[in-house]
Amino acid sequence: MSGKPRLTYVNGRGRMESIRWLLSAAGVEFEEIFLETREQLLKLCQDGSLLFHQLPLVEIDGMKLVQCRAILSYIAGKYNLYGKDLKERALIDMYVEGISDLMQLILVFPFSPPEAKEKNLATIAEKATERYFPVFEKVRDRKDVPRKLAFTTIRNFPKSFETAWPRLSCGKPIQLGRCSAHGSHFSSGGESAFCAFWVSSAAGF
Amino acid sequence: MSGKPRLTYVNGRGRMESIRWLLSAAGVEFEEIFLETREQLLKLCQDGSLLFHQLPLVEIDGMKLVQCRAILSYIAGKYNLYGKDLKERALIDMYVEGISDLMQLILVFPFSPPEAKEKNLATIAEKATERYFPVFEKVRDRKDVPRKLAFTTIRNFPKSFETAWPRLSCGKPIQLGRCSAHGSHFSSGGESAFCAFWVSSAAGF
Repeated sequence: MSGKPRLTYVNGRGRMESIRWLLSAAGVEFEEIFLETREQLLKLCQDGSLLFHQLPLVEIDGMKLVQCRAILSYIAGKYNLYGKDLKERALIDMYVEGISDLMQLILVFPFSPPEAKEKNLATIAEKATERYFPVFEKVRDRKDVPRKLAFTTIRNFPKSFETAWPRLSCGKPIQLGRCSAHGSHFSSGGESAFCAFWVSSAAGF
Repeated sequence: MSGKPRLTYVNGRGRMESIRWLLSAAGVEFEEIFLETREQLLKLCQDGSLLFHQLPLVEIDGMKLVQCRAILSYIAGKYNLYGKDLKERALIDMYVEGISDLMQLILVFPFSPPEAKEKNLATIAEKATERYFPVFEKVRDRKDVPRKLAFTTIRNFPKSFETAWPRLSCGKPIQLGRCSAHGSHFSSGGESAFCAFWVSSAAGF
């Protein structure tokens, strides 16, 4: 084994993408194994590699880490990407959990029964624009926020959401306030933003 | 202000209960404010106390903390209840996220459409008994696990789930393996267990 972290997942972004981003931001090279069959997954379950029988799996420092948040927290902590003290960390956690709440609404949306789709979409749009984006826009615009807290995600999360929205809404327009004036580094609206929040908390974007 | 942490929530367990447990385990006295009207909640939103317009709110060390995980992490970190290093913390995070995944299934279960209830209940039972409980039982039984990782939740989580099950299943029986031989400290199966995981990770139960 090379000593590099080894990431095992399917060949797609999904729940591993945020981990790839975070390792890249930390300047850490890693190896990847892409599973292609159910048998490969079952083998990992049987040999005890997957604590809860789920990917992603990251082998690092002699551990077999699972659970996305646990993995991200470990990497962020190890590579000093998680604020300078407990208070900054708490702020980062709060913003991350806020993004996560919004993303959860989006993730379960496709499973809405047909008669609830329009209402649920309206709820997502309302919460995004009235509850979540104003928080990120406010922090983004503050001059007194330490650079470590003025992370890329706060700057770009609304924009990344805007990119994802047409797929979600089948083209229905949404008013996202001032965020449309800003560029985006993200190819998708969910996990990447969740990750970049961590990443940029220390990288000082 | 007394200097004690101040907890604001409704007069119920809900998402504040795990925080109460954690503070109690740390030996920290706290004050509580129970909201009774929607106007009180709106006032907190308007004065900027609730970052994402949601309770619970914990005022501590000059901060207004929201988001359950962020609050628990801050308290656990501050009072040395979060493992002795990053590796132990990662293990704790993995187990906590596992419990959280199972609890999420249970939380959304009441919103299942009638025709899906039976299938969803079977899924919960299957995952609980085949995926999650064996993990906790395995760690509980290991003699070489550091005391800090042999937490109460691993010992009691399956039992606490068993207590909650009759409400969930309307009395339908479930086979929970060896866990039924163990006592429980929990009055409900969800947040308390989630909290106690953190609590007991350092308390050495």
